Amino acid sequence: MAASSSRRADVAPRQLTRFLKAVAAEIGDEWVFDSATDVASYQDVFALGDPRLHSPAGAVAPLTAAQVQTIVRLANRFKVPLWTISRGKNFGYGGAAPVMRGVVILDLTRMKRIIDVDEKLAYCVIEPGVGFYDLHAYLRANGIRLWMSCLGNSLGSVIGNALEHGTGITPYADHAMNLCGMELVMPDGDIVRTGMGAMDDNPTWHLSRHGYGPGWEQMFTQSNFGVVTRAGMWLMPEPEGTLSMTMNADKPEDIRWIVDTLGELRTKRIITQATTVRNYMRWAALDSVRSDWYDGPGAMPDEVIERIRQKYGVGWWNINFRLYELPEVNDAHARFIEEKFKAVTDNRFEISRWRQGDPPALSGESLPGVGSMQMVNWAGGRGGHVGFSPVLPLNGELAFAQFDRTRVRMKEFGFDYYGSMYLWERAITVISQIFFDRDDAQMLERVHGLFRALIADAAQNGYGEYRTHIDFMDDVARSFAFNNHALLRWNEKLKDALDPNGILSPGKQGIWPARYREEA
Amino acid sequence: MAASSSRRADVAPRQLTRFLKAVAAEIGDEWVFDSATDVASYQDVFALGDPRLHSPAGAVAPLTAAQVQTIVRLANRFKVPLWTISRGKNFGYGGAAPVMRGVVILDLTRMKRIIDVDEKLAYCVIEPGVGFYDLHAYLRANGIRLWMSCLGNSLGSVIGNALEHGTGITPYADHAMNLCGMELVMPDGDIVRTGMGAMDDNPTWHLSRHGYGPGWEQMFTQSNFGVVTRAGMWLMPEPEGTLSMTMNADKPEDIRWIVDTLGELRTKRIITQATTVRNYMRWAALDSVRSDWYDGPGAMPDEVIERIRQKYGVGWWNINFRLYELPEVNDAHARFIEEKFKAVTDNRFEISRWRQGDPPALSGESLPGVGSMQMVNWAGGRGGHVGFSPVLPLNGELAFAQFDRTRVRMKEFGFDYYGSMYLWERAITVISQIFFDRDDAQMLERVHGLFRALIADAAQNGYGEYRTHIDFMDDVARSFAFNNHALLRWNEKLKDALDPNGILSPGKQGIWPARYREEA
Repeated sequence: MAASSSRRADVAPRQLTRFLKAVAAEIGDEWVFDSATDVASYQDVFALGDPRLHSPAGAVAPLTAAQVQTIVRLANRFKVPLWTISRGKNFGYGGAAPVMRGVVILDLTRMKRIIDVDEKLAYCVIEPGVGFYDLHAYLRANGIRLWMSCLGNSLGSVIGNALEHGTGITPYADHAMNLCGMELVMPDGDIVRTGMGAMDDNPTWHLSRHGYGPGWEQMFTQSNFGVVTRAGMWLMPEPEGTLSMTMNADKPEDIRWIVDTLGELRTKRIITQATTVRNYMRWAALDSVRSDWYDGPGAMPDEVIERIRQKYGVGWWNINFRLYELPEVNDAHARFIEEKFKAVTDNRFEISRWRQGDPPALSGESLPGVGSMQMVNWAGGRGGHVGFSPVLPLNGELAFAQFDRTRVRMKEFGFDYYGSMYLWERAITVISQIFFDRDDAQMLERVHGLFRALIADAAQNGYGEYRTHIDFMDDVARSFAFNNHALLRWNEKLKDALDPNGILSPGKQGIWPARYREEA
Repeated sequence: MAASSSRRADVAPRQLTRFLKAVAAEIGDEWVFDSATDVASYQDVFALGDPRLHSPAGAVAPLTAAQVQTIVRLANRFKVPLWTISRGKNFGYGGAAPVMRGVVILDLTRMKRIIDVDEKLAYCVIEPGVGFYDLHAYLRANGIRLWMSCLGNSLGSVIGNALEHGTGITPYADHAMNLCGMELVMPDGDIVRTGMGAMDDNPTWHLSRHGYGPGWEQMFTQSNFGVVTRAGMWLMPEPEGTLSMTMNADKPEDIRWIVDTLGELRTKRIITQATTVRNYMRWAALDSVRSDWYDGPGAMPDEVIERIRQKYGVGWWNINFRLYELPEVNDAHARFIEEKFKAVTDNRFEISRWRQGDPPALSGESLPGVGSMQMVNWAGGRGGHVGFSPVLPLNGELAFAQFDRTRVRMKEFGFDYYGSMYLWERAITVISQIFFDRDDAQMLERVHGLFRALIADAAQNGYGEYRTHIDFMDDVARSFAFNNHALLRWNEKLKDALDPNGILSPGKQGIWPARYREEA
């Protein structure tokens, strides 16, 4: 189906067995997996087709960076490609599954040390197996007043999410930019520490954005150039107060003034949160399934949408954001924001406030959760979802056009439109979720057709996705075509130089090592 | 003297001539320089010894990225190493001069197109030859209300400064982090655009921090891996108001509470500026020379320091910062800051305010200037300066200890202490300036001895410099010794893979290509 699915690691069974045995001798039998049941547990739970097309041949689960080194060296010796996962909960993008069948999963779930948390300087140092719940539990248990930036699916890894350019909604929402100081096992098994950590015992490893010389950290995000075995992550000091502002808007085209008005406030840093705007579908999909409302083919008609909005009391679009500052500063900002909106709409904000000392439940702290995963059941059957997420200039007219194009395409392919937008300081991520029944082969075909059409539509307008599902990594990589795919050629050049045996995560983000590239 | 000074490019005169002729045929005779006078103009004007130890063999000045490509390809063919400068005003770090004698300067001064400025989304796209004055003049001439982040020496390049991890004092002070989207000529002559710019005509090239796949921009800062031929740079929208706060402190040890109190405000983003704290020497050196005060040997005695402070009405340490927000927000923050300081000192802030509509001269906008370069004349004769700039945790006790160690060392080597500190959100750069008479060979010997002692002292405490002079690039690189200099070995591995002929800026930040590495 997807081009990437057709590739398979060229590892002979005997070679694989020898590799797994050698690893077992180093890290213990119980941390090497190759039974059918074990292997199946690494499949994509929301696969867009037969999950066996992305089935690994086995998995190994080291406990320490030294064990990761050993495994990477053995992988080089036996020419066995690995696929690194932190906790494997990258749902909607492939979960734990590799792009290429037959690789061995390098599963870092056991590396879950919380090495350091500094409340005053507001950062933590953690291993990739540390999940959002783990870190949150640690902060609570130790009374540390630092706030995290969590996700709708918080089962995953804090570091893994940041490495994939995952986003939250607080002022620390751009998770990759809050990574500071990494330890890496390189494709040749060497250990490198980035930034100030390249000096022994340098206490600014996780404090200074820059070291001496070239900066390397972002190279290891959405990447197959190294294995991150620990990283520093900046956390937000508990604010003195928060103020939440909510407004609904009635018409699809209202997104124009919503984006332009919020956008100016974001660029000026009056609002420092990664502001979200979502359509009514969020409320419907959290609380119900499609067949509760409608069982006809194609996208739901407008009268059904009207009933949904009535029931949940939501707008076509729904704005919600928070201010995280001194209470009187939040109030001053709220007044300024209200004035800006009065110029473009008669709608008014609902406001709620919290200050230190008030009940914590009302603070608006971003807490780990899994509730929003409920949405995947929308289409019926065993549910699944995949998101299409191009990045646009922070501009209302362009955001409307992208939304409208996507809605038309989704209708054309028979899907209900679910949209949410993330407003950054100068750009906006326009996310559309496609929900499907993963046992409905015909529907999955439509998902593929729709997704490829969306990639092409976006590229025609000059927009690219910030992240994508393993089935589409090659397609999206190819859409970045400037100068005969110069960036892809650059990535491949580095891949070949640093990882000549093509050991680490072949095909990730469309970057293939030479030995598998020729098959393309 | 410095180890790095002893290396020389192994280019035979005939080979050099052939290269320069080939370049001249492509870009025009008038943009190829090899006369003694021309070459001397690229020497370090603040050289810490004989400037001829860093003398280039010639210079070439392309106008376009295509010409840069041509030059890089010819340099590969003729095996002539280049040293890239944007405008060559990297004073205190080597100016336009290369680490290694005998290279050819790749001078990008002529590439000074201001390609785009977007007031609403608050960014510009410029070439490396664009200076701070150029960009400022453009903004003013076009009535664009975006503020820059300028330096005491604003002769330099906006991009060049950001690439060297240069810093200003506004909320946009970490210039490298405001770079967004680059065009690069790679060592093999290929052109790559980073981030979203890897897609043809993608309008988010300079708006989105992330593209698809690994992030590359920071790799090209303090780097010899590519030539930046244009970049996007985020600028600050003119704030609604500013509020300036100034406080003096009497005793050297006051730096403890200054750093801790300001530090908390920085980590919590109540103060968003890269806050500076400076000692009295700034005022003395801006307005006078040492011999106006004292002509004895060694560091100035305390009674002279007292006279200086009296005359300029300054403290031992002097705090000044600005708030850049809505006027009522600035007031609320100022009250909060005053309360925090009341807990640790009886000193009070002097406050001044500006709001949109008030005379622009009082706004506190960061304007280009050269005034602070006057300080280099402090030591007498033809002046020069070099800064020692380790990064520490944002902690008063540690900052005091580093300051005190440095002051003792400077006294030991006979220099007056000049200190300034830049407070970031979690780290602090403790900068000490050494002023010298560049015609006093004995004094220059002392500068070298002092500087090497400072590098060693800092490394012993686990601290590294964020940037250094060409004479010390190898020393500082060697101080990053984790895992048998893993980071340096990584840098060298990439250098050899990407630039096998060692064409681009050999020795920059201690990164030597294989052909010159063996000499070390």
